[in-house]
Amino acid sequence: MSISMSSASVPIFVSMLGNLSKCLAKARAHAEAKKFDPNVLVTVRLAPDMLPFKNQIQIACDSAKLCVARLTGTDAPVFEDNEATLSELEARIAKTLAWLESVPREKLDGTEEKQVSVPRRNSEPLKYSGEQYLKHYALPNFFFHVTTAYALLRHNGVDLGKADFLGGR
Amino acid sequence: MSISMSSASVPIFVSMLGNLSKCLAKARAHAEAKKFDPNVLVTVRLAPDMLPFKNQIQIACDSAKLCVARLTGTDAPVFEDNEATLSELEARIAKTLAWLESVPREKLDGTEEKQVSVPRRNSEPLKYSGEQYLKHYALPNFFFHVTTAYALLRHNGVDLGKADFLGGR
Repeated sequence: MSISMSSASVPIFVSMLGNLSKCLAKARAHAEAKKFDPNVLVTVRLAPDMLPFKNQIQIACDSAKLCVARLTGTDAPVFEDNEATLSELEARIAKTLAWLESVPREKLDGTEEKQVSVPRRNSEPLKYSGEQYLKHYALPNFFFHVTTAYALLRHNGVDLGKADFLGGR
Repeated sequence: MSISMSSASVPIFVSMLGNLSKCLAKARAHAEAKKFDPNVLVTVRLAPDMLPFKNQIQIACDSAKLCVARLTGTDAPVFEDNEATLSELEARIAKTLAWLESVPREKLDGTEEKQVSVPRRNSEPLKYSGEQYLKHYALPNFFFHVTTAYALLRHNGVDLGKADFLGGR
């Protein structure tokens, strides 16, 4: 009756990335209504030394993808970080969703004790058990980038609310 | 071997709120170094129709507190939303952490199927099982407010990085 690794990962990634994709569609509609180029939003930042919007989307996608790849030992497709339009960023989310849905969910179950290693640029990799990795690295990091993307759209005037972030109900 | 309700809730709230408190301390130090009133940060917003920094902290605290209260059926202390300084917001986090630590963790286990009701202002309450509530409402909502608080500090020049958000390693 306790929580499975599959149920604590893919359905959350899928629902949040789906919500995020709808936020991007609203951002495009907002730009059209205001008659500005929607792709201006691709490079907006909250601070000059923070990553721009496009990277927030790319990393949100990759953090979900890499979580599932690392836990299941599946090779994930490598997506070039070459998106330059909101539509291309929506396509990045769609490709990520399609891959997440393609991995058999049962491969995630039983990975609680699996050794997971997260490479870092300038230091030794982080080592986790699968369960610690999911709860204390993959999900917080995923939510960080999804929320930052949402915050960037709100900061730039797109009419979104918490229900767009949380989705559905 | 699967994930328990207690391990998927309190340790995440505790570590993230602890990291957030350290971000607030860095914000105070930044203000002192730059010789501006640190409490200016209490009311900053990312958009005129978004809640200010203090509410982001209050709601981050309350979303953790209410999650544990609802799942365990424990009465949580009500904190007045009257913080006006960064130090008072740090105290709010500390009070929340103390209460979270005071609830016996085993009370959370076995709450996967418990009926949880989340009141809403203008519509029927949301109904969840305990497990769905934790994974699809409480944690996303908690991360939303913690990340937005972090984003507000970064947007206002506080020198933070992802390691401050994720903590520890």
